[in-house]
Amino acid sequence: MEKPVRIALDAMGGDFGPSVVVPGAAMFLERCSHTRFLMFGDREKIAPFLRAHPRLAEATEVRHTSVAVGMADKPSQALRATRRSSSMWMAIEAVRDGAADCAVSAGNTGALMAMSKVCLRSMAQIDRPALAALWPTLRGRSIVLDVGATIGADAQHYVDLAIMGAAMARSLLDVERPTVGLLNVGVEEVKGIEEVKAASRLLQAIDSPLLDYRGFVEGDDIGRGTVDVVVTEGFTGNIALKTAEGTAKQIRAYLKHSLSANWKNKLGALLAREAFEDLKAKLSPRDANGGVFLGLDGVVIKAHGGGDANAFSGAIEIGCYMVRHGLLQKIGDMMSLANEHAAALEGLAETAPAAEAQEAVTNAPPPDAA
Amino acid sequence: MEKPVRIALDAMGGDFGPSVVVPGAAMFLERCSHTRFLMFGDREKIAPFLRAHPRLAEATEVRHTSVAVGMADKPSQALRATRRSSSMWMAIEAVRDGAADCAVSAGNTGALMAMSKVCLRSMAQIDRPALAALWPTLRGRSIVLDVGATIGADAQHYVDLAIMGAAMARSLLDVERPTVGLLNVGVEEVKGIEEVKAASRLLQAIDSPLLDYRGFVEGDDIGRGTVDVVVTEGFTGNIALKTAEGTAKQIRAYLKHSLSANWKNKLGALLAREAFEDLKAKLSPRDANGGVFLGLDGVVIKAHGGGDANAFSGAIEIGCYMVRHGLLQKIGDMMSLANEHAAALEGLAETAPAAEAQEAVTNAPPPDAA
Repeated sequence: MEKPVRIALDAMGGDFGPSVVVPGAAMFLERCSHTRFLMFGDREKIAPFLRAHPRLAEATEVRHTSVAVGMADKPSQALRATRRSSSMWMAIEAVRDGAADCAVSAGNTGALMAMSKVCLRSMAQIDRPALAALWPTLRGRSIVLDVGATIGADAQHYVDLAIMGAAMARSLLDVERPTVGLLNVGVEEVKGIEEVKAASRLLQAIDSPLLDYRGFVEGDDIGRGTVDVVVTEGFTGNIALKTAEGTAKQIRAYLKHSLSANWKNKLGALLAREAFEDLKAKLSPRDANGGVFLGLDGVVIKAHGGGDANAFSGAIEIGCYMVRHGLLQKIGDMMSLANEHAAALEGLAETAPAAEAQEAVTNAPPPDAA
Repeated sequence: MEKPVRIALDAMGGDFGPSVVVPGAAMFLERCSHTRFLMFGDREKIAPFLRAHPRLAEATEVRHTSVAVGMADKPSQALRATRRSSSMWMAIEAVRDGAADCAVSAGNTGALMAMSKVCLRSMAQIDRPALAALWPTLRGRSIVLDVGATIGADAQHYVDLAIMGAAMARSLLDVERPTVGLLNVGVEEVKGIEEVKAASRLLQAIDSPLLDYRGFVEGDDIGRGTVDVVVTEGFTGNIALKTAEGTAKQIRAYLKHSLSANWKNKLGALLAREAFEDLKAKLSPRDANGGVFLGLDGVVIKAHGGGDANAFSGAIEIGCYMVRHGLLQKIGDMMSLANEHAAALEGLAETAPAAEAQEAVTNAPPPDAA
């Protein structure tokens, strides 16, 4: 039998703290009894919830701290003030010290990222970490990264993101050679910003047996599920994710309004209730899932701050998957393989921008003054 | 009585050409009988549709050309090959030459932008044009720009976008002092890219009586309608727009699937049919509307390439509004007002980046090596 996966939980994270974290862990334990938990937080606040779940209590060791990071705290302040002492920090530290295989927190994203960077450090060969989202699509699920860990990217960072995302896809989506697309404003080679175009040439040159680069994709390709992994930098990725969430909320609000407009609609809504519940479960890119920090020397999962116990159990599940399927090892292997091409790639990166075709419009003839 | 608005139409643009353009114009004429059309395109192909709409035929002058820009043509090639001769070019040229007050085309966006730039040129004081989208929100409609005309922006370009967007909001949304937000990855002042942060300081400094700057907004604020005008550069804006469209399509597909899963759901869907039709009309950010090119010395509207006659009539309506409410004049006035602050602003722009607080995480203490 496999060794149990040991999961460190920030019991105080998220909008609801232990009232969601504890039942979330209990739900996961029902699906996967072979799990051990290290739960960090206020023992007094955790205890009543844990008493309601005796099986979970048996599988759990609570480590007390009365310090918690607030959802609205600034990351730098949270780091300065609660480093070593907060439930969030202690959960991450448990991963660093080998006491746990992964950490899950629904707490303040910026603080979680800052603490993870400082505590776990980056993997060898990776300069900057990324936050990857699991995005529900018409074909299943895709991985979109970076959704906000790092603002801006050069060509090499896009390549790192592609490799990390592909490693995550191999761990999570059960595909041997994930398809990868670079998010751009058009699929033609002349479009977009220089760094994205240069990254595209690098990815074509890598031609990895572990990554099937498919070129540029556009915003509407994400929901369509055109590729397994959508690569973009953190500014655009964060805005795309939140825009999609906003659109989903907007449609829910429209539907609710329309369906209660008259008795026929109300009756219809009542009859088709299952359909709407099904829709609700599928709607939000983040609700049911967790974001994954990639590029760190340890597995850290960000659960949705406003999610319920089911959502939190989903985040634990992702962490568990990542551990069982050797995410860190897969990223390391893929990076090594990519680095075998390093000389060739560097040559390409240097000569590429000069050889680049200009954007169509700037190539246009001068204005007609006639 | 007011002078009729004279509208130049690219009859060959879009996926369906005159079969959508002509009935679209006819629909608009019913709502607004005081309109004259100049229709550019293949006379033989236009004639049968025009015969079905005798009132439109009376209000329309057809100018023949057999040259049309293909939807998949590269913008630079379309410009080189069909400049002066294509229906798209001729419609824009009619605006330049004063024969029409605005041009509407459902054709190739890149070609329309390239031709508009070359034919109409930029307004004084504006370096680069923008494409603005009308975005349905929970509060009504907002303007989002740039959704793809220009990639990348410095602080001053963001300010130009804010001013142009506000002028459009004043013309179209009937608000005297539109609220404006800068799209960012968080609402805190320390977040985001330098150019966006510098633009925020410039907009605070302008403190215009015609523009109410509200600071940063996030992706989910767009659909929420938090502000009248959402400002971003063309790369991120295009991806946000298409991601929202993709999400809307995805939800439609989910709903369709769920609602046909069993007889109860099917019956419910049948009963609530009105609600779904209502939803469909609200769903797509672009379907029912037109994108507006801003910053050019003339009004050019991009209708949705795959839209129906109703969508095309909506695009004509936007153009008509822009003309009646003096969009160009409003942009010019607001630019002049903003330029009165020019000296102060330039001082700010130069000193700003140095005085800027660093991103939270980079301020963090060094990694713990203990």
